[in-house]
Formats: sequence, structure tokens, C-alpha cells
Amino acid sequence: MQIIVKKFGGTSLADISRINRAVSYVKKSLASGYKVVVVVSAMGKETDRLLSLEDKLEEYKNSDDIASLLSSGEQISSSFFSIILNNNNIKGKSFQGWQLPIYTSKSFINSHITNINTKKIISCLKKNQVPVVSGFQGINMDNRITTLGRGGSDTTAVALAAKLKAERCDIYTDVDGVYTGDPRIILNAKKMKTINFEEMLELSSLGAKVLHTRSVQLALQYGVKMQVLSSFTGKKGTMLVKETKNLENQIIRGIAHSSNEALITLVEVKNKPGISAVIFNALASEDINVDMIVQSASLKDEKVTYGYTVSKNDANKTRAIMEKIKKKLSYKEVIINKNICKVSVVGLGMKTNAGIANTMFSQLAKHNINVHVISTSEIKISILIDDKYKELALRSLHQGFKLNKIKTN
Amino acid sequence: MQIIVKKFGGTSLADISRINRAVSYVKKSLASGYKVVVVVSAMGKETDRLLSLEDKLEEYKNSDDIASLLSSGEQISSSFFSIILNNNNIKGKSFQGWQLPIYTSKSFINSHITNINTKKIISCLKKNQVPVVSGFQGINMDNRITTLGRGGSDTTAVALAAKLKAERCDIYTDVDGVYTGDPRIILNAKKMKTINFEEMLELSSLGAKVLHTRSVQLALQYGVKMQVLSSFTGKKGTMLVKETKNLENQIIRGIAHSSNEALITLVEVKNKPGISAVIFNALASEDINVDMIVQSASLKDEKVTYGYTVSKNDANKTRAIMEKIKKKLSYKEVIINKNICKVSVVGLGMKTNAGIANTMFSQLAKHNINVHVISTSEIKISILIDDKYKELALRSLHQGFKLNKIKTN
Repeated sequence: MQIIVKKFGGTSLADISRINRAVSYVKKSLASGYKVVVVVSAMGKETDRLLSLEDKLEEYKNSDDIASLLSSGEQISSSFFSIILNNNNIKGKSFQGWQLPIYTSKSFINSHITNINTKKIISCLKKNQVPVVSGFQGINMDNRITTLGRGGSDTTAVALAAKLKAERCDIYTDVDGVYTGDPRIILNAKKMKTINFEEMLELSSLGAKVLHTRSVQLALQYGVKMQVLSSFTGKKGTMLVKETKNLENQIIRGIAHSSNEALITLVEVKNKPGISAVIFNALASEDINVDMIVQSASLKDEKVTYGYTVSKNDANKTRAIMEKIKKKLSYKEVIINKNICKVSVVGLGMKTNAGIANTMFSQLAKHNINVHVISTSEIKISILIDDKYKELALRSLHQGFKLNKIKTN
Repeated sequence: MQIIVKKFGGTSLADISRINRAVSYVKKSLASGYKVVVVVSAMGKETDRLLSLEDKLEEYKNSDDIASLLSSGEQISSSFFSIILNNNNIKGKSFQGWQLPIYTSKSFINSHITNINTKKIISCLKKNQVPVVSGFQGINMDNRITTLGRGGSDTTAVALAAKLKAERCDIYTDVDGVYTGDPRIILNAKKMKTINFEEMLELSSLGAKVLHTRSVQLALQYGVKMQVLSSFTGKKGTMLVKETKNLENQIIRGIAHSSNEALITLVEVKNKPGISAVIFNALASEDINVDMIVQSASLKDEKVTYGYTVSKNDANKTRAIMEKIKKKLSYKEVIINKNICKVSVVGLGMKTNAGIANTMFSQLAKHNINVHVISTSEIKISILIDDKYKELALRSLHQGFKLNKIKTN
């Protein structure tokens, strides 16, 4: 049984004509002799609509019911997609997370898939039915509905593909592949025919919103062939591969950016052992992820400045947590800066190539762009700059690394 | 444990201020020492919105997914209601049909509750939590989502009340009780403090849209105390009782009407044994309910005219079914009349009182209102008239039976 998992995002399901187009891709794969499993996100702006219900509340105390609320979006789209499949004489059958089930960790909002029972899926496929699975949702051991976080449907699709040993996992979205930079900002950004998993992992975790980061991790871990392609054209997109051919020639492969973060600065923290642990334990216990961290060089027994970034949505909550532990930290004040942007250059070639940082910082200096925080890994350099310099920084780095001239295969 | 089940309909949940008001009724009962179980319909016009998705399709072939689609409306409202309970420092916990589970018959669209597992509900109540149960939905033995038909949340509430041996089942709605006639048409219609179950059963099945018919049947069967009251005022509504006090004095208790039916007339059907069975078996096999039936007096071996009413929504489907069995029936033509209205007078007193039909038909004759079909039971008389006479007929019958002067207790 040769299986393809096809995942359709919200924009690919926004209205009936788009769903019909999605169905035509299912039809095509069926005609080629594949068995097809469909995974869907919520239709169009449905998740935003549901979140807006919640936004009307000042606060909420139980994420349990929020997960149940949000997951209804995928319930609508999977049911509806299956109805339209049937209208096209394809036997569809919708499955909610609890119906398979898709088991997850306990957490309601950013849960992780722990296992999928594919018995019903396989039984469908054997009967030439097309299972339509709600992405983004599962159940935990208490039989409560959980959700996988924004973009979690990608992860559902890859997890299913891994478990079913599928030939490929196609992620249909509103862009036609992975670009060297955001094509809305960098007009000569180039679409890549292939991209290495690790590069994609960095790009997606750094703000290139093409794929859910965990889906790429999972695909890498289980060797799932993954393709990103446009639901509007259905043409070949970008294929994620284990090795790209032109590794030697091309050092940097893409530039990502994200404006979703806030920089939290703790001014004049008393520097003593264990202070960092106090800060980051307090945040972790409230499920707040910290991304970049910077600490001013400290003289012994002197005061230091801590800076770190969190998701903008978590900024106010973070302030409250810092207030709570103010006594322990005895800092002077907390400053929250939301007008920042993270820009990252990514490429496997960096591993064996010096001079990347030099090119990067010369480009920024040329335009007088001040860098607040720097963080690096083996295959990326990320910087934090004022948001107003975003376009300028992206375009000048894209040009500086000659990304408009790279071979895209 | 003294339990009250409170069911809130769509209009009672249309926005946050209304949900807050609903929550205030929960609070009040909790303060009086009761345990409260909440049952909710879909918020405001949510079910209509979901149905409108489906309406965009020319047809659909699998009601399986339609049930899954529609049930998401209650998932949203139960989750959201529980969130707001928690914001009011009441521990809420939402439950979908599958989470209890609520077991139903196999059918997806007009399913019947077969059993409810109340273990989780009771465990919540013991912990002083308020379970918020999605009405209208359940699962069948195949683990597929089913729905109970329009207004099915009332039935969920009563079934839970029966199973939990609740003190009372409060149905909060957009009217403040049961009236002697539609108060939008009959301005001096009177609200009844109590109404007999059987009368209510007739009224609701005849088009008084206050309660889901099956919920009344269930309440009668299991002896559930049931109250209809307004979610806007929270004031005492109409209590459903086994016996009303003034049975002897008041013959007719209410007038109901429905414009949801279509009259199907088969002209010149060949009259031979088994013809009725052919017609009604064909309809039953497609789940079409027939209400009133009339057959013209037949001479032996002559042709007859069959008339019967079905739901307006089923009219076109009915025509198609009749076309299919045309050869067997050899009728001349099918006429569908959608401009009709069913008017019914209801009262336990009719059992022992002659002259009701006389009063009824004199009133109609006085205004030259022609009657197409008549059907009677022990406690009601229903007639089918042209829809244009609806208001005239209702007002003159209300006055003719002096319903504006009845004692309402």
C-alpha cells in the first residue's frame, strides 16, 4: 500500500471552490494508484474567530476548555472536507483526534503527540476510503481534548506519515515553496527546489512561517519525505531532503525573520549564583518559552543586566512573573520592548566556513543598524534589531550573501 | 445530593453578557445548596451558520459527517460556558457527548439517546465542579458522532435529569413560559403557571416551539420535574405537572400552529389493496415523517385522491420518491402545496367534553376559512388551512374558546 499524506492549511480551505481544488489533488493521487490520507487545519480564519471569542474575556483560568473550544475549528473542516469528497464520488470519512485516537501529552495548549492508533485509518484505506483527519488536536490520558499549538496540523500530518510509513507528506499552503527570504519583502528571493532538513528546521523555528517546526523535527527523525507546495497551483514545491547537492558552493541558504517576540530587560539585577535559575524556572513553570538570552559582562559582586526574548503574547504575563520574584532578584526595573525583530541567516555551509558573521555585521553596520542581541548555532546566526529596520536589514543581507544568484536545486 | 439540570438555548448564549446572565442563575442555585449540571445548545445562530456551509452544496451523501459538522456548535458553547464559569470562580468542566459518553441509536441526524454514562458528571459534582454538557450530540456504537435533531438539547437535559434523579430540569429559553397561543400573534394570550405533560406534548409536537417534543415524552416517562423559563428575566416560568388543578373547568388549554409543513396530493391514484403501504413504506425508508393523512372516499375499483403532509424541507425529496414509485401507483399527478398552516387546539378536557369540534368549525366558518385536512386525537384537534388565514384563525379560535379568560395556574 503506497500512501501519501496530504495536509491542507486554512487558506487552502477558506471556501468551497478552494476545497474543491484540494479535492482535485486528492483525486489525482488516487488516479496514480496511491492511497491518500488527508489532514486539515481549521477553515480560513476560523481559529482566529474562535480565539476572538476568548479574547473578549479578560482572562481565562482553564486552558482545558480553550483546547476544546479551538479544536472545534478542525472538526468543522474535516467533516466538511469529507462531505465534499463524497459529493465528488470519493468515499471520505472524517476523524477527530479522539476517534482514532491521537494520544498526546497532558498539556492542553502546546501538547505533543505521543502515539497514534492508525487501525481505523488502515481499515479505511483498505476499503478505498479517504480518511480525513482533524489536525492540531488529540486527547491526553484523562480523555480531555488537547491541541498542538499554532501550525500543529503540520505535525499531525508528519506524525501520521511516519506511523503509516507513507511515501511522502505533502504540505499544501498559500506559498509555493521555501524561499531564500520572505518574497513579500525581498522581491528577488528565489524558490528552492530542495532544502536540507536541518536548514528548514532552523528557518521555521526562526520565523519563516512555512512549516511548524516540530513537524520538520519529526520528519527528520522518522525519515519522512516532505514537500511544501501551493494549494493554488498544485505545482512542484520545495522538497525537504537529507542532503542538498550544492552544499559546497552555497554557504547561506535562507534568511528568516520574526516580529513576534518581545525583549524583556531586567535592569541592575544583583549578580549572585542561581539568579538565572530563579528567572528561568519561574518562566518555565508558567510554560513561557525563552528564546534569546543576553547577560551583560559582570564584574564580581556587581549588578548585571539580563535580557531575554519571549513571545509577544507572553510579554504581560512575563512582567507579572518578574514582579512576583522581584524580592528574590532585587532588580531596579523591568523594560519590555515589543518593537523588535529577529533576523537570522541559515545555512549548513556555515559549519565549515568562517567569515559569515563578518559579512553579516558589515552589511548591518553599513546601514547603521544597531544589534541588541546575538545568538548563534552551528548553522545559523540570529540577531535582534529594531523592528523599523526589518526590511532594510533583510534586503541588504539577501544581497550581501548573493542569495538572488544561488542555484535553487 | 440535590441536583438541578439547567439547559440554556442558543439565544441565551448569543453573547458574553447573556452567558454571564446564565452563569448568574447557576450561581444562585449553587448558593441555595443545589448541585448544578449545565446543558447547552449552540451559541446564537451558530447551527444556522454551520448549516449554511452545507447549504452551499447541491447535495450531500453522508449524513455521518454532517452530524460531526453540526455538533461542533455545541462543542464551542460548552467549552466557552465553562471558561466563563471559571472566570466567575465557579469550577466548570466541559463534556462533549463522546467524553461521557452519551450513547445514541445509529442514525446521525435524528438519533435517540439510548444511555448516558454519568460517572464523570457525578465525580465532578462531588468535587463541587459544574459539568457543562454539550446538548444535541452523542455517539453511536461505531464511535461516530450523532445528533438528536433540532431542539435536541432539551432532550439531552431531560435525559441527564432522569439519569441523575435530579430535583428539576430548568429549560431557559427566549420566552418566559408556555402561553395559551403564540403571543406574537395573539396579543392577549396568557402565560400558564402549570401545564399538564400530555397537553405540552401535543402543543410542542404541533408547532409550539417551546420544547423539543421528545424531551417532554422523556420527562413524562421518567417523572422529571420540568420548568420552562426566560433566560432574560430568570423569573418563574411554566411548570410541567402530572395533573393541573382546574382540569374540570378548562376544556381547551392552548392553541398551536405550524407553517413548516407541505401538503402533498396524489391525484387519481388507482385504488387497490396495499397502495397506502407502497406510499408510506417508500417515505419511511427515506426517513421522511408523514403527519396528517387524508384519503378521499373511494368507490370500489375507482380512483382516489391521497393527501398527506410532510416537513417543507422534505417536499422536494418526497416528490422525487413519488416519481420513483409512479408506475406502481399509476397516479395522474403530484401537487405540492407549501402555503398551508396547521392549527391545533389542545386540552385534556376534550376527553370528556363534546362540542369542541363544533365550536372550532363554527369559528372558522364564520370567517370563511376552508379546512383541507382534519386530524384528531383524544386531547387535540388539528386542521390544515391556507397559510394566509393563519392569524385570523388563531385569534378567532383563541377568542372562541375564551382562552384570554382562563385561570393560568
